[in-house]
Amino acid sequence: MRYALGVEYDGGGFQGWQGLGPSGPPTVQAALERALSSVADQAITVSCAGRTDAGVHAECQVVHFDSSAARDPRAWTLGVSGRLPPAVCVRWCVPVADDFHARFSARARRYRYRLVNRQVRPALYRQLMAWERRELDAGAMHRAAQSLLGENDFSAFRTVHCQAPHARRDLQEIIVRRIGETVEIEVQANAFLHHMVRNIVGSLLEVGAGTQPESWIAQLLAGRDRTLAGPTAPPQGLVFLRPLYPPQWALPAEVTL
Amino acid sequence: MRYALGVEYDGGGFQGWQGLGPSGPPTVQAALERALSSVADQAITVSCAGRTDAGVHAECQVVHFDSSAARDPRAWTLGVSGRLPPAVCVRWCVPVADDFHARFSARARRYRYRLVNRQVRPALYRQLMAWERRELDAGAMHRAAQSLLGENDFSAFRTVHCQAPHARRDLQEIIVRRIGETVEIEVQANAFLHHMVRNIVGSLLEVGAGTQPESWIAQLLAGRDRTLAGPTAPPQGLVFLRPLYPPQWALPAEVTL
Repeated sequence: MRYALGVEYDGGGFQGWQGLGPSGPPTVQAALERALSSVADQAITVSCAGRTDAGVHAECQVVHFDSSAARDPRAWTLGVSGRLPPAVCVRWCVPVADDFHARFSARARRYRYRLVNRQVRPALYRQLMAWERRELDAGAMHRAAQSLLGENDFSAFRTVHCQAPHARRDLQEIIVRRIGETVEIEVQANAFLHHMVRNIVGSLLEVGAGTQPESWIAQLLAGRDRTLAGPTAPPQGLVFLRPLYPPQWALPAEVTL
Repeated sequence: MRYALGVEYDGGGFQGWQGLGPSGPPTVQAALERALSSVADQAITVSCAGRTDAGVHAECQVVHFDSSAARDPRAWTLGVSGRLPPAVCVRWCVPVADDFHARFSARARRYRYRLVNRQVRPALYRQLMAWERRELDAGAMHRAAQSLLGENDFSAFRTVHCQAPHARRDLQEIIVRRIGETVEIEVQANAFLHHMVRNIVGSLLEVGAGTQPESWIAQLLAGRDRTLAGPTAPPQGLVFLRPLYPPQWALPAEVTL
């Protein structure tokens, strides 16, 4: 029997979704597999919609797993959450068709990046937002970002460690808005390269601060050269909001296209 | 010379604004006075607009202090923030008239309470929101809350430890709204009694969950009996948004009526 889970986590205390080794802080995947295996009383491994880096959060990561253990959705949500550390919980569980795959069935992913834009570092929201001292023109950032829309080669915004076979991605929406002293960037694509959101944000910050013109983002994209783009924005401002699936899979509305 | 400061803090790691003794976690006031005294190179004590309890946050607490040390506003904000723990910062500093008093000059205080309303405990926002499993009717809570408006005796919502000489307060606004799975209560009064916001929220939750009728809040208020009201809602959902002062003090717009 195959199940899909919606998983929420505070990435602050984790090495990321998937760890690279036994040293350092634990991974979200390891914590989740341990809790699921305990409830199922059998070893369970999960596949996720999108791996997140160390310090990156998720409002609704989606995973699937197979288990012959007969458990109702309540056990897979409340029971598993009871065995997870406070920074992770299972929001929902639904049985899915055997050919559903959390990663390959997803048609889009949506991320949000938030930063506090002021002279003084954030205190209350420091674990959920990055910080930019330079006064940002969110309108300029939004206009510049629109040049990324559509199917493009995003090599300019890809880390050298990215293992994807090619860099073409379809960027479907990108919105930059100011809410008081917060600047928020929300972006949706069919899929993302490693560090792609944080590298786009890092480059947009240069436009927002006025050190680069609005046309710079289109130039970077066309140049496909990572070394010319802005720095990678820090992880704590980034939240994986949700992947999106076609209606055929009958998943909860929040992750259905 | 008298100064006013806007102070932001994550109350999670503090015993509250003002500590009751040397044991337990530190207090925000002690951390702030230590940092100010270090920058001023002289002992500084502060008075605040509203003392917050252990675990309660502030977006903009206001304090005043006197100092003969000649420092520019940049030293009192960035310099002091650099000496504060990560959970506290100084947002702004302005020189004020000698008869300004952070507590007595304030005409109103505004608080916000947020909770996640679902079966599963929160993970990503667990340090900023409380949790209520029972499905809440935010509309019923909002209607019931309107009976608290105006100048009333709030003894029903006052902790037995409250030291205020009387319980009359002018409640100027209270709004309950649902935003997805979050329920948010925003409330403004001339001043608040000890635990007043959290006791009002605790009682509104009974109305929202349907265990008490909407008319119950008006009954509680009229009865003036704390033992009949709902339990005190937990601290992590509460944020002191800001006090409000008359324009004569020339404070930043966010704290001016």
